[in-house]
Amino acid sequence: MNTTDTIIPYDALLKYTIDIFKKLGCPDTDAHTAALALLSADLRGIDSHGVARLIGYVRLKEAGRANPRPRVRVIYETPSTAVVDGDSGLGLVVAPFAMQVAIEKAAKVGTGWVSVQNSNHFGIAGYHALKAVEQEMIGIAMTNASALVAPTFSLERLLGTNPICVAVPAGEEPPFVADLATTTAANGKLEILQRKSEEAPLGWIQDSHGRPSTNPHELKSGGALLPLGGDRDHGSHKGYGLGAIVDIFSAVLSGANYGPWVPPFPAYVPMPTGMPGKGIGHFFGAMRVDAFRPAAEFKQHMDKWIRRFRSATPIPGQQRVLIPGDPEREMEAERRANGIPLLPAVVNDLKGLAEKFGVPFPDHS
Amino acid sequence: MNTTDTIIPYDALLKYTIDIFKKLGCPDTDAHTAALALLSADLRGIDSHGVARLIGYVRLKEAGRANPRPRVRVIYETPSTAVVDGDSGLGLVVAPFAMQVAIEKAAKVGTGWVSVQNSNHFGIAGYHALKAVEQEMIGIAMTNASALVAPTFSLERLLGTNPICVAVPAGEEPPFVADLATTTAANGKLEILQRKSEEAPLGWIQDSHGRPSTNPHELKSGGALLPLGGDRDHGSHKGYGLGAIVDIFSAVLSGANYGPWVPPFPAYVPMPTGMPGKGIGHFFGAMRVDAFRPAAEFKQHMDKWIRRFRSATPIPGQQRVLIPGDPEREMEAERRANGIPLLPAVVNDLKGLAEKFGVPFPDHS
Repeated sequence: MNTTDTIIPYDALLKYTIDIFKKLGCPDTDAHTAALALLSADLRGIDSHGVARLIGYVRLKEAGRANPRPRVRVIYETPSTAVVDGDSGLGLVVAPFAMQVAIEKAAKVGTGWVSVQNSNHFGIAGYHALKAVEQEMIGIAMTNASALVAPTFSLERLLGTNPICVAVPAGEEPPFVADLATTTAANGKLEILQRKSEEAPLGWIQDSHGRPSTNPHELKSGGALLPLGGDRDHGSHKGYGLGAIVDIFSAVLSGANYGPWVPPFPAYVPMPTGMPGKGIGHFFGAMRVDAFRPAAEFKQHMDKWIRRFRSATPIPGQQRVLIPGDPEREMEAERRANGIPLLPAVVNDLKGLAEKFGVPFPDHS
Repeated sequence: MNTTDTIIPYDALLKYTIDIFKKLGCPDTDAHTAALALLSADLRGIDSHGVARLIGYVRLKEAGRANPRPRVRVIYETPSTAVVDGDSGLGLVVAPFAMQVAIEKAAKVGTGWVSVQNSNHFGIAGYHALKAVEQEMIGIAMTNASALVAPTFSLERLLGTNPICVAVPAGEEPPFVADLATTTAANGKLEILQRKSEEAPLGWIQDSHGRPSTNPHELKSGGALLPLGGDRDHGSHKGYGLGAIVDIFSAVLSGANYGPWVPPFPAYVPMPTGMPGKGIGHFFGAMRVDAFRPAAEFKQHMDKWIRRFRSATPIPGQQRVLIPGDPEREMEAERRANGIPLLPAVVNDLKGLAEKFGVPFPDHS
């Protein structure tokens, strides 16, 4: 948080965001669903994916690339699987529908797996995966995204940052939530460096000739993000493999676009030509823990797992060993209590939307 | 391959390996199953996990840690899930059983997911995942392993190299097979550097004080392998999260040991104390592609995906962009035709086993 940030209470920001989605033409329940999903990013400290993107969703709708009143539906299924057609809806609405289908299938046959076509950006993967945890299930969420990442040895950008989240319920301990872009660093981290005029570590990006670069603006001049690992010697082929798996599960299974054909989020970026599918793709999974062993047993061992790792001896001078999900959960508690900090540029965008749509922007000190 | 390598034809090495497993007391069909799984590593060029480990399996059996005549069985199930008890059997036998259960469940309800307790090392994940591909399914295989990896900020080793494989069928193209340890570098790569007396790149290992190290012998003096990413700035928390997911799916779901309690492969290493489960754990998945869309459609798009990535413009001076699985498949074709190269130390071990068990060691030029 910076001293120039504006702090808005969560409830007020939620109400404002719901109002904007309604003004876009979303039905009331969809506006509510979308706002909860979007602001979960702000609560969890992933500011790049939260309300800062609201104006981006507005522009998508205005460009005719997002349908505010979609007919989201299952178009193919088996007892444990489904494909959902998002009808060009907001991913923030399509994804909760699809995760609910996965959860209902898991309730019946142990697990449920849903691939989604014809959607848009769904916010953060963690929000959707955690919906399963509420039902004593392991939740899995992933999505493809427009191509910013160069596979190992590639000059071309062919994959998105393609995040994977796996969320696991525990007993007395809070859930385990590993939510990770399959790149060394997510694009949001580059944006932070750009604002601070700082350089990126080597291993995050390559320039337009495929050379290692520390310039966080490199993507604007033909550079690319690098897969988790950074270079071949440090396992970038593994990050590339993981990003590819997300792309295939989200889009080749569902009939969405994949690889370099995934539609961009910024409405001013032209759509790719020769697109082989519909919209962007997601993939969701839900596994009942009691489909494997009694839930009480599972939770007891999950608690033991978490406690053992959390109590590991840290490297001298380093912070404690974290359980995946710890930092985001602590941030959420803090921000629910004290409000969401917004950068001046974001406040500016939101005030502009407030004026445009005749919606009050929340009071703040 | 080195000039001092001995070349053994695959069929001869397979027969020899089957004979050794029989001499350990494995039933004929299990000996055959185990030998096929073990030698798939040699065929695919993952020499550290192949016949070089045969003597390790012999020692495990002799130490009473592996049961040559296990009663492998399903102990818990739903329509799409099962837990398999490996009865302390060789993972090379238990894993094919469990993957078959996953495949049969997928045939009925679209997907099958099997977590395994009370097993031992299963060879390479790719072999098991590819069994699903033969049935027009996506195959997933993972396993935990004894703790050699320090989570981000940890001085202690708490995770194994915990590999994940995802194998995806295509149409005219060969399958996509991403088979990756969740560390920057697998332990086998350190062994290669040790033999060559070369240093490791920074980012692979830390020393006993948690400092970056280039010494490939570091694990013998309290050092650790690093999760994929290497350090926090390069995303090691993501590699740690992935390794943790493998551990949880393989062992907390099944009732196997996890974290620092996973039994070691070398029979001379004492067993951990206070073990919370049984043996080591694996996790398998099978998803029918036609549980999501007609198989012909899926395969056509998978071919398009593969061709687009394979034809990507490479970075000047670099090799072509590879599809995960390409190098291993090319290696397998070469070695099936021309034989398996074995290092002198491996030949020595195998000749020793041949003598000990009264089994002929294959002729070679």
